[in-house]
Amino acid sequence: MKLYDLPASPNARRVRIFIAEKGLEIPTIAVDMTKGENKRPDYLEKNPLGKMPLLELDDGTCIAESGAICRYLEEIHPEPILMGRTPVERAQVEMWNRRMELEILLPLINVFSHTHEMWKGVHTQVAEWGEICRETALARLVWLDTEISGRDFIVNDDYTVADITAQCALVLGKAVGVRVPQELGNVNAWFARVAARPTARA
Amino acid sequence: MKLYDLPASPNARRVRIFIAEKGLEIPTIAVDMTKGENKRPDYLEKNPLGKMPLLELDDGTCIAESGAICRYLEEIHPEPILMGRTPVERAQVEMWNRRMELEILLPLINVFSHTHEMWKGVHTQVAEWGEICRETALARLVWLDTEISGRDFIVNDDYTVADITAQCALVLGKAVGVRVPQELGNVNAWFARVAARPTARA
Repeated sequence: MKLYDLPASPNARRVRIFIAEKGLEIPTIAVDMTKGENKRPDYLEKNPLGKMPLLELDDGTCIAESGAICRYLEEIHPEPILMGRTPVERAQVEMWNRRMELEILLPLINVFSHTHEMWKGVHTQVAEWGEICRETALARLVWLDTEISGRDFIVNDDYTVADITAQCALVLGKAVGVRVPQELGNVNAWFARVAARPTARA
Repeated sequence: MKLYDLPASPNARRVRIFIAEKGLEIPTIAVDMTKGENKRPDYLEKNPLGKMPLLELDDGTCIAESGAICRYLEEIHPEPILMGRTPVERAQVEMWNRRMELEILLPLINVFSHTHEMWKGVHTQVAEWGEICRETALARLVWLDTEISGRDFIVNDDYTVADITAQCALVLGKAVGVRVPQELGNVNAWFARVAARPTARA
């Protein structure tokens, strides 16, 4: 197996932390988007959308999409369990992972994509949309603070892939100026907890 | 079990088709957003985000997010298999389901949300963003046409949850004026194939 990586990408970071939590070592190849390496024919053959991360198996099978890569690794290396132990638990982890992805990470990606100068001239930026997404992300953090009251982690008292998604979202948040307001004590305590894990900088 | 449903929603339709393909009968309760039923305290207790679909188990456990509901049903009612038979197959189904969701369905939801007059005054519409998403969805349909060449369904020759997501996306596409261009023979043939299934109008 090898992992095609984009070091600064929150989606690639999700997979790297997942791999580190599993205690796996998978050779990693950084794909340099600034040099257009992700648009070269040999890479497009692996993922025609030119996106990272991508896991290539030894037989050449390519798995794109961070959620699909994590699911595959969970199946072939079940311990430590990061996606739930029973059908109900797995459904709840999936629910929370989706919420962290669609309600927090995705809006923050839109803030980055539509307001950060790195993308000026690369694609059309719609600043108004970026600002709406900033408000959405902040509103969801307020909601999350209530939801996780009394819990150590996003789903319950076990660290799961939903925590990984949320922590990667907040790392991106810092980069685009969306910081967790101080009064959100539960989210801040949770973030301190996940950021202290040895895998947080994977 | 019971399903809290929003009849016109593409995400709720994904779950209804999934249930029909499994041959299950799950009592369904339509939640009327126009009457604000999804914002009433009893519903917010089930899903604090006020979104549908939502599956409530007999012990009161609530599973929100269409992807999580489908995964739970796949686990407790494995046949017919709609999410892959082996770890690699399951990863590929997940990859394609994510692609159909993030690359086609989500842009079309944005077209609806940002250009359709139904949402005028309900939330801030950013028409420019809606138009960019329209272009994205069309570009992805062109890409999909190449990808599924020679295949009966999105992943391979088995109908899976990725087909369900894609067909629900295209139903929404029709409603917002994003039709599959005639020259995309593979996508058109595929859509005719899935639309002919007895479950397509679930």
